Amino acid sequence: MSEEKKIPYKIYLEENEMPTKWHNVRAAMKDKPAPLINPGTHEPMGFEDLRPVFCDELIKQELDNDTEYFDIPREILDFYKMYRPSPLVRAYCLEKKLDTPAKIYYKFEGNNTSGSHKLNSAIAQAYYAKEQGLKGLTTETGAGQWGTALSMACAYLGLDLKVFMVKVSYEQKPFRREVMRTYGASVTPSPSMETNIGKKINAEHPGTTGSLGCAISEAVEVATSTEGYRYVLGSVLNQVLLHQSIIGLETKAALDKYGIVPDMIIGCAGGGSNLGGLISPFMAEKIRGEKDYRIVAVEPASCPSFTRGKYAYDFCDTGMVCPLAKMYTLGSNFIPSANHAGGLRYHGMSPVLSKLYDDGYLEAVSVEQTSVFEAATQFARTEGILPAPESSHAIKVAIDEAKKCKETGEEKTIVFGLTGTGYFDLTAYQKFNDGEMTDYIPTDEELKKSFDLLPKL
Amino acid sequence: MSEEKKIPYKIYLEENEMPTKWHNVRAAMKDKPAPLINPGTHEPMGFEDLRPVFCDELIKQELDNDTEYFDIPREILDFYKMYRPSPLVRAYCLEKKLDTPAKIYYKFEGNNTSGSHKLNSAIAQAYYAKEQGLKGLTTETGAGQWGTALSMACAYLGLDLKVFMVKVSYEQKPFRREVMRTYGASVTPSPSMETNIGKKINAEHPGTTGSLGCAISEAVEVATSTEGYRYVLGSVLNQVLLHQSIIGLETKAALDKYGIVPDMIIGCAGGGSNLGGLISPFMAEKIRGEKDYRIVAVEPASCPSFTRGKYAYDFCDTGMVCPLAKMYTLGSNFIPSANHAGGLRYHGMSPVLSKLYDDGYLEAVSVEQTSVFEAATQFARTEGILPAPESSHAIKVAIDEAKKCKETGEEKTIVFGLTGTGYFDLTAYQKFNDGEMTDYIPTDEELKKSFDLLPKL
Repeated sequence: MSEEKKIPYKIYLEENEMPTKWHNVRAAMKDKPAPLINPGTHEPMGFEDLRPVFCDELIKQELDNDTEYFDIPREILDFYKMYRPSPLVRAYCLEKKLDTPAKIYYKFEGNNTSGSHKLNSAIAQAYYAKEQGLKGLTTETGAGQWGTALSMACAYLGLDLKVFMVKVSYEQKPFRREVMRTYGASVTPSPSMETNIGKKINAEHPGTTGSLGCAISEAVEVATSTEGYRYVLGSVLNQVLLHQSIIGLETKAALDKYGIVPDMIIGCAGGGSNLGGLISPFMAEKIRGEKDYRIVAVEPASCPSFTRGKYAYDFCDTGMVCPLAKMYTLGSNFIPSANHAGGLRYHGMSPVLSKLYDDGYLEAVSVEQTSVFEAATQFARTEGILPAPESSHAIKVAIDEAKKCKETGEEKTIVFGLTGTGYFDLTAYQKFNDGEMTDYIPTDEELKKSFDLLPKL
Repeated sequence: MSEEKKIPYKIYLEENEMPTKWHNVRAAMKDKPAPLINPGTHEPMGFEDLRPVFCDELIKQELDNDTEYFDIPREILDFYKMYRPSPLVRAYCLEKKLDTPAKIYYKFEGNNTSGSHKLNSAIAQAYYAKEQGLKGLTTETGAGQWGTALSMACAYLGLDLKVFMVKVSYEQKPFRREVMRTYGASVTPSPSMETNIGKKINAEHPGTTGSLGCAISEAVEVATSTEGYRYVLGSVLNQVLLHQSIIGLETKAALDKYGIVPDMIIGCAGGGSNLGGLISPFMAEKIRGEKDYRIVAVEPASCPSFTRGKYAYDFCDTGMVCPLAKMYTLGSNFIPSANHAGGLRYHGMSPVLSKLYDDGYLEAVSVEQTSVFEAATQFARTEGILPAPESSHAIKVAIDEAKKCKETGEEKTIVFGLTGTGYFDLTAYQKFNDGEMTDYIPTDEELKKSFDLLPKL
């Protein structure tokens, strides 16, 4: 194949080529994702039910399964200009190293201080809170990328922010905490003694180092009990996937600019925010039968919600104060083994992606973390970027697929999402460098125990 | 003033607008910087004298005071494409926050995994070593930016790398060490027991936590005593300023594209690599009387080589194995106070910049670190980027100058160099956030003691 137009190392978009709307993949779905339901009544939750927790405009986005494009407000577009468009990079060096005929591209979201794609939704959620005249926000953070991103966004807009940080991360990642503090956020280790649910969890599980589900419960409690505050979440929700569609829209615009059609799109998946955003416009084409991309979610073998979870209504948090969501889940009591490094540790998965997976539009694979860090190291040494452990799940599968192309001689075009940088994950890299990293796969028995606690509807 | 052409938030250069040559400011200097001299004979050092230590091609660049432009080899241009052009950013948000009529631009060099501008020279030095058929390189690193950059460059080119890391940094910045190891470098705390000079220093100063000058001595000893190895340095040298001129050339091309003429160019200065590179083409115009820019070096009050040092021949290292250089120096025995955070801690200053300063082409100011971290925090909250402590010296003075413009109503155009990110400096940020950061200014007596040990010529 002769290349019509020379493809640069990095494809940037001009200002006038930048997306000005977000894409809502739900509009293209024949069968819509199941609604959030009230844990008590099991009735679908409407606008009014969600108002005590979420900002009004975000609830509208959450509930709207029909509008395909949402205008991005001017102020958010201005903020995006600070770090967007993110580059779509042709991994020439990696291709050469692998000696593969495959063409590998990655969409790199780490070129901003928060270090990941999380900022795309953080600024949107903070903006709508500001517009609504709110005073501040609460949230939770695990690995810390979401908390960092939201701290930046709130500092920029002059909103207060209270972050509940999973205690084990708070202690093991003091630098993440300091970045958030530098941006002016207050950071509390969770479970804390500042909330009823925190006190309860501390009493029932003395010495617990916390979980994402527990930090969510605390953040929701503070938001709903403090005047002028609302709660925001960095993944899982429909609104988050909507905001993150900027990743996919830019990727598609950059590929279209050079007439490139990917064979395969790969993304890591924890709650699904990056994957959902990356694939949004591609998935719409696939659903409508216009194109036939392979779309692959990669998850950790230690937290395998797609590949070993159940598709069922479950709690989004440990304290069971949040709505129930129908999703692939390991059960809200599931906590990944302590040797699991990095994020992608949420027990559930975006309801949108769960539905798409259940309907067969999406594949999923799980990978073990030592193999992920091997791929991360190979990528760093050839492409220069030190990837986040989360992102490296996608790298691992992209490399595997490129190696298959070497065997078959196929010139496939592979696009993957590189969600962020690993600057705050050096403890994990050190373990890997010292040969002390281990893998863990939950047993069927463990999962069964967790499934037994799923809510009965 | 009506703006002829709308100035985007970030000015990127197109591939065909990218510099393909480095700029050598020495060619424009009427009086050239003083040569390196042999510490024994006091004779200027020529090509053959330097060959045991440095790569051949780099010595040529080091000694050439006349050639104004050097072609950048194709392979280096290809590597630059991985992270260059770096953006020239209009600090609209900061201007608004300061409510200043000044126009502030910064050239941001932190968008690569090494996190700073150091990569520009690292890849060049590694490339020439590879071309010469060498097996590996040795170097020293303090704050760790240079070691990280060189590790990336050596991984990319398949060269071995041995880094001597100042012991206090090795212990306080384990994550920097792990990044280097991830890129495949061997990292040794200095002073070590692996070299004669290291053993000697350890014997004379038991429990010492090391210094940059001492790590240089160790790295030089290993390079000169190991077949197929040479020593490389990340700052101070003429060749380094030459490679770093890519920063200034890009900055100038971006400004020219929009017809912007800066009134003032500000850069932080430790050994002078970023400042020297940033100002290179602007300084040539100034020397030739074509333009009249104010050019300002900013250094820490705790390590004030320009503002309080002597312009004299001095040793580049503690072990006194390196050539003597004529430079502004605090004396090769000077070690900044332990409370000094970040880099910019070298006792001397680039001979080129020293000469320009002595000839009045360059101003210098010193600033105290708590005020630097205040500026850093303000910058992070408005512009989003978490700056390195080094870079924040320039931010501090840029903000001060913008505030003066507010008072006078002058619409000055200020350009400063933002050399890198502060992801590995969170211990210092934490101190600042906790209100525990202190300042230190060396006493005249301390400096006198150090000056008394300057070599007598």
